[in-house]
This record gives sequence, structure tokens and C-alpha cells, in this order.
Amino acid sequence: MMERGGKVGHGEDPQYIIDRFAQTRGRSLDLCARLTPEDMQVQSMEDASPAKWHLAHTTWFFETFILKPWAAGYSEFDRDFEYLFNSYYNGIGPQFKRANRGLVTRPSLDAVFAYRNHVDEAIRALHPERNGFSEIQPLLELGIQHEQQHQELILTDLQHAFFQNPKFPCVAPDQHVETIRHASPLQWIAFDAGIYAIGCTGDKFHFDNETPQHRTFLEAFRLASRLTTNAEYLSFIESRGYERPEFWLSEAWQMLQTNPRIAPLYWQKRGNEWFQFTLRGLQRLDPAAPVMHVNYYEADAFARWAGKRLPTEQEWEVAAGSLELGSNLRHSTPTLSPEYDGRNLTQMFNCRWQWTSSSYAPYPGYRPLPGTVGEYNGKFMVNQYVLRGGSVATPEGHIRKTYRNFFCPGASWQFSGLRLAESGP
Amino acid sequence: MMERGGKVGHGEDPQYIIDRFAQTRGRSLDLCARLTPEDMQVQSMEDASPAKWHLAHTTWFFETFILKPWAAGYSEFDRDFEYLFNSYYNGIGPQFKRANRGLVTRPSLDAVFAYRNHVDEAIRALHPERNGFSEIQPLLELGIQHEQQHQELILTDLQHAFFQNPKFPCVAPDQHVETIRHASPLQWIAFDAGIYAIGCTGDKFHFDNETPQHRTFLEAFRLASRLTTNAEYLSFIESRGYERPEFWLSEAWQMLQTNPRIAPLYWQKRGNEWFQFTLRGLQRLDPAAPVMHVNYYEADAFARWAGKRLPTEQEWEVAAGSLELGSNLRHSTPTLSPEYDGRNLTQMFNCRWQWTSSSYAPYPGYRPLPGTVGEYNGKFMVNQYVLRGGSVATPEGHIRKTYRNFFCPGASWQFSGLRLAESGP
Amino acid sequence: MMERGGKVGHGEDPQYIIDRFAQTRGRSLDLCARLTPEDMQVQSMEDASPAKWHLAHTTWFFETFILKPWAAGYSEFDRDFEYLFNSYYNGIGPQFKRANRGLVTRPSLDAVFAYRNHVDEAIRALHPERNGFSEIQPLLELGIQHEQQHQELILTDLQHAFFQNPKFPCVAPDQHVETIRHASPLQWIAFDAGIYAIGCTGDKFHFDNETPQHRTFLEAFRLASRLTTNAEYLSFIESRGYERPEFWLSEAWQMLQTNPRIAPLYWQKRGNEWFQFTLRGLQRLDPAAPVMHVNYYEADAFARWAGKRLPTEQEWEVAAGSLELGSNLRHSTPTLSPEYDGRNLTQMFNCRWQWTSSSYAPYPGYRPLPGTVGEYNGKFMVNQYVLRGGSVATPEGHIRKTYRNFFCPGASWQFSGLRLAESGP
Amino acid sequence: MMERGGKVGHGEDPQYIIDRFAQTRGRSLDLCARLTPEDMQVQSMEDASPAKWHLAHTTWFFETFILKPWAAGYSEFDRDFEYLFNSYYNGIGPQFKRANRGLVTRPSLDAVFAYRNHVDEAIRALHPERNGFSEIQPLLELGIQHEQQHQELILTDLQHAFFQNPKFPCVAPDQHVETIRHASPLQWIAFDAGIYAIGCTGDKFHFDNETPQHRTFLEAFRLASRLTTNAEYLSFIESRGYERPEFWLSEAWQMLQTNPRIAPLYWQKRGNEWFQFTLRGLQRLDPAAPVMHVNYYEADAFARWAGKRLPTEQEWEVAAGSLELGSNLRHSTPTLSPEYDGRNLTQMFNCRWQWTSSSYAPYPGYRPLPGTVGEYNGKFMVNQYVLRGGSVATPEGHIRKTYRNFFCPGASWQFSGLRLAESGP
Repeated sequence: MMERGGKVGHGEDPQYIIDRFAQTRGRSLDLCARLTPEDMQVQSMEDASPAKWHLAHTTWFFETFILKPWAAGYSEFDRDFEYLFNSYYNGIGPQFKRANRGLVTRPSLDAVFAYRNHVDEAIRALHPERNGFSEIQPLLELGIQHEQQHQELILTDLQHAFFQNPKFPCVAPDQHVETIRHASPLQWIAFDAGIYAIGCTGDKFHFDNETPQHRTFLEAFRLASRLTTNAEYLSFIESRGYERPEFWLSEAWQMLQTNPRIAPLYWQKRGNEWFQFTLRGLQRLDPAAPVMHVNYYEADAFARWAGKRLPTEQEWEVAAGSLELGSNLRHSTPTLSPEYDGRNLTQMFNCRWQWTSSSYAPYPGYRPLPGTVGEYNGKFMVNQYVLRGGSVATPEGHIRKTYRNFFCPGASWQFSGLRLAESGP
Repeated sequence: MMERGGKVGHGEDPQYIIDRFAQTRGRSLDLCARLTPEDMQVQSMEDASPAKWHLAHTTWFFETFILKPWAAGYSEFDRDFEYLFNSYYNGIGPQFKRANRGLVTRPSLDAVFAYRNHVDEAIRALHPERNGFSEIQPLLELGIQHEQQHQELILTDLQHAFFQNPKFPCVAPDQHVETIRHASPLQWIAFDAGIYAIGCTGDKFHFDNETPQHRTFLEAFRLASRLTTNAEYLSFIESRGYERPEFWLSEAWQMLQTNPRIAPLYWQKRGNEWFQFTLRGLQRLDPAAPVMHVNYYEADAFARWAGKRLPTEQEWEVAAGSLELGSNLRHSTPTLSPEYDGRNLTQMFNCRWQWTSSSYAPYPGYRPLPGTVGEYNGKFMVNQYVLRGGSVATPEGHIRKTYRNFFCPGASWQFSGLRLAESGP
Repeated sequence: MMERGGKVGHGEDPQYIIDRFAQTRGRSLDLCARLTPEDMQVQSMEDASPAKWHLAHTTWFFETFILKPWAAGYSEFDRDFEYLFNSYYNGIGPQFKRANRGLVTRPSLDAVFAYRNHVDEAIRALHPERNGFSEIQPLLELGIQHEQQHQELILTDLQHAFFQNPKFPCVAPDQHVETIRHASPLQWIAFDAGIYAIGCTGDKFHFDNETPQHRTFLEAFRLASRLTTNAEYLSFIESRGYERPEFWLSEAWQMLQTNPRIAPLYWQKRGNEWFQFTLRGLQRLDPAAPVMHVNYYEADAFARWAGKRLPTEQEWEVAAGSLELGSNLRHSTPTLSPEYDGRNLTQMFNCRWQWTSSSYAPYPGYRPLPGTVGEYNGKFMVNQYVLRGGSVATPEGHIRKTYRNFFCPGASWQFSGLRLAESGP
Repeated sequence: MMERGGKVGHGEDPQYIIDRFAQTRGRSLDLCARLTPEDMQVQSMEDASPAKWHLAHTTWFFETFILKPWAAGYSEFDRDFEYLFNSYYNGIGPQFKRANRGLVTRPSLDAVFAYRNHVDEAIRALHPERNGFSEIQPLLELGIQHEQQHQELILTDLQHAFFQNPKFPCVAPDQHVETIRHASPLQWIAFDAGIYAIGCTGDKFHFDNETPQHRTFLEAFRLASRLTTNAEYLSFIESRGYERPEFWLSEAWQMLQTNPRIAPLYWQKRGNEWFQFTLRGLQRLDPAAPVMHVNYYEADAFARWAGKRLPTEQEWEVAAGSLELGSNLRHSTPTLSPEYDGRNLTQMFNCRWQWTSSSYAPYPGYRPLPGTVGEYNGKFMVNQYVLRGGSVATPEGHIRKTYRNFFCPGASWQFSGLRLAESGP
């Protein structure tokens, strides 16, 4: 459920994709540079996976979908890995029990590194000039995209694991964090009713769930100019929002009775002050920063309390269409620090994954990728909700207006926040 | 989750509504005429409620929302009932634990009958000619509609309870059942792309979740001319559909591993023959009859196996708009027998609740009813899917093209079936 | 777990046993005289059973073990009952799921009454003068004893069911209850070290688990002259006993963390006053009365807090051996009211089931009854603890010093209390 | 539940105990020599703990009960460790959640090694000649015994963790295993009825639960001359023992329905052949070797199938009393290989932990150790069963006839087997 399936990209200089492959593979290792073998072993809940598993599974993806079917003479690294590091591809075969991923101490981390090297070499040995490469290239692109998605999960899963530790270790001690002095005043940006095109088309890489492009009719709506801040969310808490059933979906209220919660995941109150567990350890809560680690139920409850609602994913996409992407994305390297902007529609991209009110569903005319990679996206289209925009930890190539992320409404360990919407002209 | 909230109806002859109140109240008792006090006591799962509870709760609705606030001098029947028979209205106050409804043996059934009489008399004593009646009338209508919804639940909940009994008792021994000799050949009815109006408007009663009427754009689609039959569903089973993960949503497949299932709820194989537990006891499966008691996962898996998909609720509603309601609804009394029709788009209404692929969500501009009755519908809008059309057990006034029923995707104890759809002109 | 298996009794006037059969059967009905069909239907937890089930199961016992094998020409009442009302006798065949007993509304209560009549007549039609009766007689005795055990369970199970009802109905409104003005001062009765005979021998009826009589060596010990009172237990509560881990078994402490509890089952604090839910409804707690509805963990924790311990079942039995039974049992009819006595070793019998520290285990040389009735006792000998002495609700014939009752340490819905012990001369 | 509490030992040359301390500490590290940091991190079930945790917790024991209270000027290594590595000593303070021990990646393994060094040095710096040492010495002894107990748990917990790995890694590849060619013929050794002394006395170290020595009366009994073999257990399996309820305790039978099991833990059938997962990986089952990894339910069911029973712990201890310990313990170093002997009462010690039918309970007059170390044993005395004799993995000093090990009846990951008994002269 935590992973994404995708539709393959298109023509590009073959050598360039091999280079990007190498960069992507290296980036995954960079993310783990400060971790111990133990850090990379543990799994703190069934929804999360060990970092070691992420490193192996992304490798498995290249081996399974490219090397085994397409690379003549490729020699499998370890035949047990087909079973061990398959996430959920039933077309490939059965999978090791997800909840037990954290118990697999052998292969060791070193063996996983060797596995990565073995596969990396075999990929580099593919001859881009050969005839078959045009068939391999889209799969290579998909594998790169897939690994990039797992890079964000490595961070969120690690953060969750470290949060279980009463010593609150710091995952990324040198991460740059901007302190935000003032949140910009909240303005309402209006959009007209009309028929809009939703979804992706064209040559650039995109996932199958972004297609086909189709028409949708939207009634007039308005979108908040920026994300909801910690300070605003705190007002909700302080007005006893978590104790008042009128703001909560029935299902959410039931959960609150069973598993009481008084704030977003990773928030901790010490004395009279709020802290937040982050990749850099426990930090004082920054009131002007966008709220992070709320689940869908919390996002929805906050919106009801505020007298507003969450946007649909179509509304979000239409609004994003009016943006110059560059104006929101000052940083060119995938750092972990958010960007902020005082202008009109800000914090759309690369800041927080923004919950929409849209259940994750196929677009009209949607067809999954053919073959086993078709399990990537389509089979998760129930009881999950779409998030848009990308977070501070989202790799650059995954920041686009048609991109659909999705999680169960109870999930809050992703870098998820919210933006308010309302109906009417 | 099992109940619906609604938007109030409008102007009608005041006396007429009092008459309909009496008819509705009488109909609830008729449904229970053959039941023992024990039958009406039991609760076979948390999602179901005892028949006795349904009789009391629907009474509580009139007492709570009409008599207490509006009937001067009304004397409460039993002050404990406010707590005991409140389903989920947090605005009224706390509720007795849902899972324990079946344990409340006191008040006895006789006391619940007395409660009904007490409230019936007080309602009849309202003076339609008085000034305030215009404020009461919409609530009275809502209470009638609410009780009618519970009438269907009385039947589905009883069936579930009786199914736990190894003697397979018969709930409704004299229920009329038509044997269907031949299912009509499956045809595909095409609908053009375009902007359509969805949702309800006007004076007639409707629920808040059917409003506001709004525009939607649909790409071209086609709808099956009739419901999927038992014979067709059996082909899916016999091609080992329940063992092949490629047809199932990931979440559904997980469930099948944990709670194995080989056929819809209430199906039983004895020797080489399939039977189905019905309100009339165990019956030989009728191949031409529309499949019943499939959950959303099964409906979706069947559609994938068939190379089709489920319709969205908007597609369904648009298609239904082209129907003369009368042509599909031969029977004027709410019997339990389905109607069939050889003509184009058949079995749309009053036959099976038809799963759509639409997650239950608010329409653009949706506003719940003001006050505590506003908890009726809006707070259930997550992780549920919309069903359309009404079943053989649905009271007549609930059969309309804009009506939205909703259940969790795992629910199969309702009279639920499916109709296939596909994209394209 | 809730029932007992037994070893058959011996020679008695055949007619007398038929009379006692009739009395016992009548007594079961008397216990239910004030109950509605709904009261007798419900099952409030897996460990409890509906009163209707008890009435049917005890009848099943006579039908299964006597009428079917021994009564020529006996006509089975309903062949489904063999499965439906078998409690746990695997030798007879599979059983209906225990947790679902409360869902079986058919057969109705009337049908169960008819079943009882049918079996009663067949038993009365047995000819005591015939040759085979000597083989039937011990089974008849076992069936009577079995039904008497269920009589106590009918009351405890009903009380548990009624406790779920927020209206706290009264099961036995005319039950006589003595108010105890003063508890006698607690004295310590000393017993010497030595070899003692434990267990039963002789002609009178007893269960297999009371045999064989065997020798045991006891070190010197002392036993409290009376049971622990509510007032004493309240002191434990008020000294924060439920919050101090040093008094609790590790397993108990874990449970308290998961399922917090601040007092025995059925205790309710209203304002500053303690009440107890009893068969007569909610009653003010009587400080001098022996504490009731404590589980093993609570009994053990209280004893540790008091610097004492629970007696072993052997110690209890040896102590009881010195008693004139009559001196403790003033009442000759099985009322529900306890007897109290100011003399030395009081409240041993017919007052509260007294937890002992002895795990329920076979006596040296123990052999279960031959045949399927052998499942009565032996298969429960793990993870249960022995209670001795009988309660206010225990039928007279079950009050003897060798009688072994047993329940899981977490069980508290029986009429269970405790008596302290200590080691040393 | 997995650990033991103890009663302190007595006078010994102070320097000798310091030496034994060093040996014991070194032995723990030896056990982990071939493990990776990841191997030592994982926790495969709540009942097991990571090897890293075992290394830290045993260190914590010395720090908490000796260094902090007795070593002037001792500087705590890390103040968070008091909470983090406390197992269950409520008297010391709250404990980190047991089920999450496997998630604590920081402190790293290196930090735990540093912790061990820090504490080892501080212990070595204690001056045996000083006055207070006589008070420290028994605690030091207890700490050594405690660490030795954890050495066996390190192995059993690791084996369980490795068993979750589909690659079935080998924990101890060079472990010596004797192949047993023939099991000796099973003989019955008879013991007379009489009064026997049970429990420990004297100067040598023993745990509090072995005291006080007291008298017990045993009826005559016979004990099998050797342990039950794999071949014998296989006969039970092949006679469909796991499918026949008549052999199983009721509670066991329920579990088998819920969690089906067809053989002891770690047995695997491949084709027609049985294998067993051992510390040396998957091995062909040795028919003559004593069965291992049966739980109490299985041991009891086997005994019923064989027409015998399990011995009580008193019977076992009395029988063991007639043995020259040396005759059963050929090996002087704690290898992992069992010893076998053709003589009368064989395989009593150092072979398999032998389930007895005795619930773990206090001896008459039992008093826990004073102070917080008193939580070591007494608070586990409910719902656990005693095992005797020690296993192939039990450190030498823990092999004695009065030693009481204990586990829940469902536990099978220890090196547990069984020996049959029967009643009578």
C-alpha cells in the first residue's frame, strides 16, 4: 500500500538514462550514510519497511523487470531474493510476509550492498545502442522513478522507527531547516466553474494512474493561498477540537475513542510547550510552519472546525495548473527543507503532501500497465485518499501537478499537511 | 454506518402526512409479525442491530426530534431511553455501546410496543392546523423516511442473525419469489460524453446527501442492460476467480488470505449443488436471478475478471434519468420479489442495490442539515461506497434515481448486486 | 470451562432417584420463573451461556447419555439438538460454536420446554425394577448433579448479562438477604503438620476429580476464622492497592494495564458510596459481608497486601474436615442468602466459593470416568485454580469438603471470595 | 516471564567470585561472536528479546543492584538505561515496552559493548577485602546466575528469530552434535510411597523459589528411564494424534483449532521426510534423539496417548536425588550437545528441560528475597508450569535437582522435552 505503480516514460538519450540511474542509486545510499546496520534493520509497524529492505527491494525491481527478462546471460544474485524482496507483485510469485520484513537479518547489510553492486553493474553493461534498448528504456525509467519513491519512504519509515526509541535519536543531524518568522496572511484564490482537463499526456514520464487525460467539470471554488500552519492547528487543539465529535467523521471518532490522540503524530507536549519529533530529533514546534503528520481524519476535522473543507484532487490540479512551477520551487537540489513564498498561491509543491477529499480511483478510461508491472497502482484503488504536491522529502522528478500520491486515511507518518478550500464563486 | 441522514421534504397536506406516519409505523410491526421475542432480541454482529432495537430507535427518533422539542406538555416515556436508543447522535448525548445492543433484554418487547404506542399517540395528537406545524412537518417526513430505511435493515439484520443458526430458519415463509426462467441477453447501452446534472432539486422529499444539484462532465460510457446473474458469477467462481490475485484489489486479497471465502455471503454448496440462504430459508440457487450479497470487493473483482468495470454513481444516475420509472417498477406494493423486464435498461430499480465505484463523498456545495439531525449523513463520508437503485426490500418511497445508499466495501449482508460498465463511445 | 465432569454415585432406592430427578428438573424451571424469553436468550460473553441453553443442554445430557443408549424405543426429540446442545463432548461429536449460543433463537423457548417435557417423560418411563437400571442409575445421578451445577451457572450468567444493561435490572427481586451487622473478629485457627487423607471415598456421589483418596503431607499452617469482608477489601482499595504493582502477580499487573479495574466486578462507586450489582439489583455495599466477585488475581493481591497468602486446597480440605457440617449450614433449603456464624471456623460452606492457591490438577492415580462422560473433568486440568466451599447459590448436594470447583484466574462472575492463610505452627 | 529471580548464595573466596564474574561476562560475548549487529537487534515475538538487549539488561542488573547502591563514586553510564534495560522490576521504576525492545537501534551495539566494559571495570574495582563486600557478594552471585540464565535465552531467542527467516540461517555452524544411533530401551524405574524432602538447603547458591526445604508425601510412582524420543513422538503424530481431541486438554484443543499445528515447533516436513530447525540450521530429524521444542500441551497429549502421564516436579526431584550427578554429566564444558547414557535413569540433566505436571507455585513457607530483587521469581507463580533438569544449552551451574525452570504451557521455543511417568508401585 505504501508503494506506487507507474506508467513508463519515453524517448530520451539512452546514455542519459544510464547516468540518471547511477545518480539515483547513489542517492539511496547517501540517504543511509549515517545509519548503523541496526537502524537499517528495524521495522516499526507493518506499514513501514526497514531501510535495508528498501535498498534490496528497489534492486529487486531492476533485476526482476529488466535483467531477468531482457539481459542475456544475466546471472541471478541469489534465487531466494525473488521471494524475499518481492513487495506485492503476485504475477511474479508469492512474497515474504510483509509484517516480518524487520526480522530478516540475513542477508546482512553487506550482502545487500553486494546485491546492489551486482545489479548496478549488470544495468551499466546494457548496451544502449543495441536494438532491444527501446523496450528496456521505459522499464529503466520506471525503476528509477520507483527507487525515488522509496527514497522518501526510507526517510518516513526511519522517522517512525526512531520515534519508538525513548532516546529520540536524530536521523539527519545536519539537515537544513529554515525557521519561518511569519506565515503569510491567508488569502482565498478563486477559480471559475468550467470544464477542465485533468491528468497527464505527452512524452514525459508519468505513472499510469495519471492517465488518461480527461475532461472534468468543476463548480466554482476557492483555495487557500497557503497551507494550514502549526499555529492554526494548535488553535483547533486548544479549542478542544479532539474532544468534540461534531468535527470528526464517524469512523475517526470511533478511533479516537479506542486510540486516544490529542495532537498530530510526533507532537509532544513538555510542560507547556509543544515539540515535534523530526528527522533532526525533537524540535520546538514552529508556529508559522505548515502542519505536518496529520492524517486524513485530522485534516478533515480541522477543515470542518474552520468552516471550510478539503479540496478535491481535481480542484487542486486545476489550481496548480496556473502556477509557474519555478516560482514555487526555489531549490534545485532535493534538500529536506521546505520552500516558502509570500505570493499568491504558495506552498503548492515540495512542502507538504496535501490531503485532498478525493478517494483514490481510476480516471475514466484508465488502463494499468500491461504485464506484471501493472500491479503498481491499480490494485490499491480503494479506501485510500489522494495527496498532492510533494513534500520536503520528495525527489525533484516527482513534483508535478498531475502526480497522485495516496494513503489510507489513518496514515500520518508521511510528510502530510493540508490546504483549505471552499465552494462558491 | 448502517443508517442514513436526510434533508427534509416540503409542503404536503398535513393530514396526509399523519396518515403516512401511521402506515409506516404499522408496516414496521407487520415485518415482525412472525417473529418471536427472542428473534427480535439478538444481534449477530456489531454492524447489525436487533429488530427490537430498530423498533425502539425509530420511535426514539420521533420522540427526540419532534415530541421533546415541539410538543408542548409531552411526557417522556422513559428517561433512560434517550441514552439507550440513540444510535449515533452525539449532539443529543452519549449512546449505549453499539456492540451490546443485543444484550439489553429489558425493556422487554412489550415495553417497546408500549413505547411505540405512547409516541404514536403523541404524534397523532399534534394539531396539523396549528401554527408550528410547518416546522414539524419536514421532521415528521424525515422520521418516516428514517423508519422506512430501518425497515430494510430489519430484514437484512434478521437474515444475518438467522444465518448463524444451523437450523437455517425461515424469516418470511410466505414471501413471494418469482422464478426467472431466462435472463435477457446482455446488451450494452451507450451514453454520450457531456455535462450532466447530478443530484436532486425540487419539492419532493430527498436527503441532504442528494444535494445540491450540480454539473458533472462524463466521458462516453456504456452500461450493461441488466444486472450480473448468479450464473455469470458462478462462472467467475468456477474459473477459480477467488484464488487468482490479479482480479482483486490488494486490500481484498489480504482479507481473502485471512478470512477465506469462496462465494458470496449466504451461498452454500451441498454436494455439487449451490444453495443460497434467503429470507425464505435455504433455496436452490436460481441461475438467471441477479447475484445478491456480494460485497464491493467481489463486485469489483468480478468486473475485472469480465474485462469491465463498475459504473460511477454519476454514470448510473445519468443512465437512470432516461428511464420511465414506471416501466421498471411493475409492482406497486413493496413486496420482496424483484421485477424483471426484457427491455433495454432493465433491473435498474427495486431489484438489487448496485455497487458503484464511487466513494461516498459530499457533492460540491454540500451542507448537512442544520442542528443535530445534521449527523444523519455527512459524517459517514469516508471509506464507504455508493450503491444505487434499491433492492427487492426497499420501501417504495426510496426508489429514485438520485438516492444514495452507502456501505463499507466489505459489507455483504445487504441485498447488493452489480451491473457492469465500460468506457468509450 | 464452566462445567464439571463427575464420577457416578451408587446404590440408592431406585424410586428415590426418580423423585430427585423430578425435583431437580423443577428447580431449574423455578429459577427462570420471572424471566422473559429475551432474558433467557442472551449471552453476554463467551464464558457465559443463555439460560435457555442451560435448560436445553442439561436435557441433552439425559438424552445423550441415558435415553439414547439405554432406553429401548426412545424417539429422539430433534436430531439437530445433538449438535446444537452438546457443550464440549468431542466423543459425542462436533459442537455448535460456543460464542454463538446466544444467537440461536430457534428452537424457541417453548420448543425447549417441550424438549424438557419429552425427555422428562422418557426418564420417568424407565422401569427401575428392570434389570438394566443398575447401569442407568449412576448416570441418572450424574445427570442430576450436572443439572444442579448448571443451576448455579444460570444465576451467575444471568447476573453478568443483566449487568450489561444500563438499567441494572433485578434478576431475583424477592431474594432474601440478611444484613450483617458485625463481622466476627478475625482469629487464626492452627493446624499441625502431618500426613492427611485428601479426596473422597465411599458410596456417596462424588465427582471423579475428587478421587482417588490419597495421602498428602502438610506443613503446619493457620487459617483465618472467617472470610475476608467487604470492609477489609475496601481498605486494600483505599490504600491504592490496585495501583501498586508489588501486590500483583506479573500477569495480573499486565492485565490491569490493559483493562484497568479499580474494584471487584459489579462494584460501582456513586459519589462517595460503593454499591454492588447483585441478583437483586444495585445494592449498597455491606461492609461486614464477605467480599464477592473477586478473581484469583485480586484474591492473591489482597492476601499479599495483608501479608498473608491463600490456602492450598489441601489445607482448606483438612481444615474443613474438623467441622460439623451442620454447624455451618443453618439453612436447609437452597436459598440465595449466606449463613454466618460467630464460632471458630466459620463461613466455610455455602457462603462464598473460596479461591485456593492450588492449580486444578489430577490427584495421584486419578482416572477419568470411562467413555464419553470422561470428558467431564479431566480435560480442564490446566491454567485453572480450585475454589472450595460452595456459595450462597450452590445447591445443597454440592456442599462437601472434598468438592472441587475450578475457574480461570481471571474469572470473577462467580460468587467467589477468599479466606486468608499463613504458614507456620 | 522469561527470566528468573533468585536467592543469594553464600561465602566463597571473594577473589574467586570476581574471576567467575569475568568468565561469565566473557561467555556471553562468546555466544554472540558470530552474530552481526542486525542479528543481535531483532525480536521475533514479545516473549523473546534481542541479543543486544540481553547483553545490556544483564549489565543493567549489576549496575542497578550493586554499583548504584554499593559502589561509592560510581558514575552511571547513561541515565536513560535505567528505564530502557529494566525488564520487569517495578520497584526500580517503569520499563520500556517489552514488545518494542527490537526497535531500539540506539544505543548501538558498540554502545552496549562500551556499557559492558564500563560496568565490568567498576565491578572489578570493588575491593573484596573491604568491609561491605559481604553484602555485595550474594548480589554479585545473583547477577552471575542471572546472566547465565540469559545466556540460554540468547540462544533460544536467536533460534526463534532465525526461524522466521526463509533462508533458515545457522546460528552456531560449528556446534558439535552427536548422532544417536540407538535410544536405550524404555524401562520403568519404581519409587516407593513416603515422605520426602523437597527443595534446597545449605550454603551453595540457589534461587528463592527452591526454598524452603519442606516435606512432601508421594504415593508410589514410576518414571521412564529415558526421555521420549523423536521416533516415539512421530508415532503419536502418525496415529493422527494432532487431530484427535481425546488426547488434548480442552484449552489446547481450542488453540489447535485457531492456530493449526501438526508437529512441534521447528519441525518441517519436506516431501516424506522430517527436518528440524536447530541452532545449526535445518537438520534431518534424528529418530533416537529426545524430542525437543514441545510445549506443555503437546507433552501432556503425548503422555495421554501413551496411556501415561507427566511426572510432578516432586516426583522428578525425588528420582533425581538417587542419581550421582557425574554419571549423567560427562561433559565438563558447556557445549550444546546432549549427553546420553545407557544406564538406569538417564538423560535427567543437561539434555532437555522436562515438562512436569506441576503448576509453578510457592513452596510452603516461601518468602521472596527482600527488596526489589524479590521480584525475581515470586510474581510469576500463576499459569506457568515447572520444567526440570536443564537442557543442552543450560550453563553448568544451573544443573541441580532442586532447580525450577518455568514457562507458560504454550511455550515451545525452549529446549523442552518430556519424560513419562505413571502411578502405582
